[in-house]
Amino acid sequence: MAEGIHNLLGMKGLNREVITTILGTSAEFLKILERPIPKVPSLRGITIANVFFENSTRTRISFELAEKRLSADVINISASGSSVYKGETLLDTVRNIEAMRVDLVVIRHYAQGASKFLSDRIEAKVVNAGDGSHEHPTQALLDFMTLRQELSEFEGKKVLLLGDVTHSRVALSNIYGLQALGAEVMVCGPSTLLPHSISELGVESCYDLDEALSWCDAVNVFRLQIERQNDGFIPTLRDYQRKFGLTRQRLEKVGRKITVLAPGPMNRGVEIDSDVADAPGSVILQQVTHGVAVRMAVLYLISGKERVDE
Amino acid sequence: MAEGIHNLLGMKGLNREVITTILGTSAEFLKILERPIPKVPSLRGITIANVFFENSTRTRISFELAEKRLSADVINISASGSSVYKGETLLDTVRNIEAMRVDLVVIRHYAQGASKFLSDRIEAKVVNAGDGSHEHPTQALLDFMTLRQELSEFEGKKVLLLGDVTHSRVALSNIYGLQALGAEVMVCGPSTLLPHSISELGVESCYDLDEALSWCDAVNVFRLQIERQNDGFIPTLRDYQRKFGLTRQRLEKVGRKITVLAPGPMNRGVEIDSDVADAPGSVILQQVTHGVAVRMAVLYLISGKERVDE
Amino acid sequence: MAEGIHNLLGMKGLNREVITTILGTSAEFLKILERPIPKVPSLRGITIANVFFENSTRTRISFELAEKRLSADVINISASGSSVYKGETLLDTVRNIEAMRVDLVVIRHYAQGASKFLSDRIEAKVVNAGDGSHEHPTQALLDFMTLRQELSEFEGKKVLLLGDVTHSRVALSNIYGLQALGAEVMVCGPSTLLPHSISELGVESCYDLDEALSWCDAVNVFRLQIERQNDGFIPTLRDYQRKFGLTRQRLEKVGRKITVLAPGPMNRGVEIDSDVADAPGSVILQQVTHGVAVRMAVLYLISGKERVDE
Repeated sequence: MAEGIHNLLGMKGLNREVITTILGTSAEFLKILERPIPKVPSLRGITIANVFFENSTRTRISFELAEKRLSADVINISASGSSVYKGETLLDTVRNIEAMRVDLVVIRHYAQGASKFLSDRIEAKVVNAGDGSHEHPTQALLDFMTLRQELSEFEGKKVLLLGDVTHSRVALSNIYGLQALGAEVMVCGPSTLLPHSISELGVESCYDLDEALSWCDAVNVFRLQIERQNDGFIPTLRDYQRKFGLTRQRLEKVGRKITVLAPGPMNRGVEIDSDVADAPGSVILQQVTHGVAVRMAVLYLISGKERVDE
Repeated sequence: MAEGIHNLLGMKGLNREVITTILGTSAEFLKILERPIPKVPSLRGITIANVFFENSTRTRISFELAEKRLSADVINISASGSSVYKGETLLDTVRNIEAMRVDLVVIRHYAQGASKFLSDRIEAKVVNAGDGSHEHPTQALLDFMTLRQELSEFEGKKVLLLGDVTHSRVALSNIYGLQALGAEVMVCGPSTLLPHSISELGVESCYDLDEALSWCDAVNVFRLQIERQNDGFIPTLRDYQRKFGLTRQRLEKVGRKITVLAPGPMNRGVEIDSDVADAPGSVILQQVTHGVAVRMAVLYLISGKERVDE
Repeated sequence: MAEGIHNLLGMKGLNREVITTILGTSAEFLKILERPIPKVPSLRGITIANVFFENSTRTRISFELAEKRLSADVINISASGSSVYKGETLLDTVRNIEAMRVDLVVIRHYAQGASKFLSDRIEAKVVNAGDGSHEHPTQALLDFMTLRQELSEFEGKKVLLLGDVTHSRVALSNIYGLQALGAEVMVCGPSTLLPHSISELGVESCYDLDEALSWCDAVNVFRLQIERQNDGFIPTLRDYQRKFGLTRQRLEKVGRKITVLAPGPMNRGVEIDSDVADAPGSVILQQVTHGVAVRMAVLYLISGKERVDE
């Protein structure tokens, strides 16, 4: 089943069939999450290490919950403290973890390509939980799970990626995956936060939010990294909000339903207003629930049946 | 059973029957803790998040042990690192955790009322593990469990709260609970560390330790926050020790047994002397054991039977 | 079985029979680690606290994995944050943990003798996971497990300890254990990093690496603490590497097989070259695997059968 899924390093290269398999399995796990006892023994005895070279409490918790609900044994390794591995190389660190008979490594790293680098060199299976501003495939998959619920299908649907595309670790994963699924993608934001090279991926850029909204069926609102606001990418937060903040007024002007996604954490009143985020029918918290289901599916599919006794 | 216990936000408003139910259930769990395998399957499949916005290793471990001995799945979230949630609101943080299908949130927060704020807005059950210097109900309950063991009953018994009442997160919880159980409460300490408003709760203040000791059946010694000693609350540590430190001499002068409680961590030689803390018959370490039993009881009662398969 | 093992505080005083028992049990657990589901219920219901007063991600993970594969309940306590226990004494900290009905404490502490100090004062069983630069017995045991695999026996075998012996927490444990097993030990390094008193243990010092290599059957390469390089122990890293770095050339010059151990983390290109560490037949990563097996064996033997229901 889903033969190609030995690791999950990125959405790039995954075809529609594989993505559809993951989403289908995720839907099964979502049902399990709704049970009184949302736990299955599928990965009993399997050991998973969550190795985080960058803080990401939200992603780490989501993976950890997914792992525990699959009955895996879980080890959390926060390598952000400078002294943790005393100058050891990334490869030595992970080889050591692998030598302790860890079956699967979930890795978050600040360097683009870190998960690919590892998976080429170790036998343990690898899931990319974000490598720099490159890919973050499970986040994209939870976006797709939510989109499928709202839009029924992807073919011909139009998805807008709004905001800081350059520093986002979700943008590329969204683009690769959505295109594989048959959707169209456009990006919108200030020119300083949209990479020029994005046109090579067949993605159009738009610098006017109203125009972009009138085009799309769904919008994925990326977090503005406020800690970067003094780096010269935007004049002021207020200016950003005025031009690119998603407000109820803007959405109402379009005159038809647009699905709003936001990977969070949100800066309320900057890239998104509270009356959008908390609107009746908002699916932003459902995305979080879908995140656990998607990660259960990915870990389950990657682990394969050969090491599981059920 | 104990109908009112859907959350545990504070001792305020809990009546004698509810407190007695919790203490009775705690006594059952204490017996389980004495077994060779101190573990029950009561909360199997239930997920509990310990969300600590302030460091409190001791409280966190006690809850974590209680949870694991009830066979719950446990997620620890330390939100004290400033970057953890990148400017997200408390409510967004906890709503996210809840959206991952967490059943129960144990929260420690520096702001008074944080746990109430949350429990009004989320569906997951909430246990207050300390909100600022407001309430810390499970700590009070473990004090009561220890007092019941030593004094047999509460009706008419006299309990002295000694030391830094103003900054204590246990004082209010003790006062509300002890009064509900029929005990009398007095506070003793320097006037700078006793809140004026405490008389409104029917609690007398006393500034002379010997006088206060001659009144009481039990004394609960609060930690002096040494890190505050330069804030002007006390002249010097030595002066504090001389006037309000609990010593063997002081206790012997009273001429009858006084039960000594201390929530810890203790500053030995400041608010309490080692020959008091370590005296034969000291119950200070028993308090710690009772803490695990009380937390097992609270989590068990709050979770309710409807989500447990045993 | 192995009557003397109530605690594991150091290799000092352990006789050949006890060490052989531990190594034999470790070999059994190594087989379990190779199974599809590398988990046994031996310590179900037993609670183990990993109390680390110093960062040591690698050792902590190895213990944690060992504990989880024995089905123990695990509590991790990192006491390196200064505010964690607010001035409380080590003894109060651990007594508190013990009072929560923890059965076994694995302790890493910066002070020599910390684990002995504790085990004299608490009833919970204690495993020393490194006390200052004194002992680190489970690390020595994993070295021995690897040496036994490579050398078949210890009697008359010659083992060289290379590098920073003074600051190593493994050197003494290696010396005591290897001598008990009948091996000879020599140390080699710059005179500033070899303690003078080592001759009292019957260990010869050598300041020439080529000479030392020509003597030994196996070499255990200790990590140079690069963070100390400005403390005056060595002129420069380059000078250290030139005189005491283990290179392929040096090993080839000896003309027979020498087993190379390294406890890691390694400074590649300083105390050891990559073409030694990664050579075909290198056992350095096997040491890491053996570490989990050894810790499973130690925890299993120490816990005893009387508290286990299998």
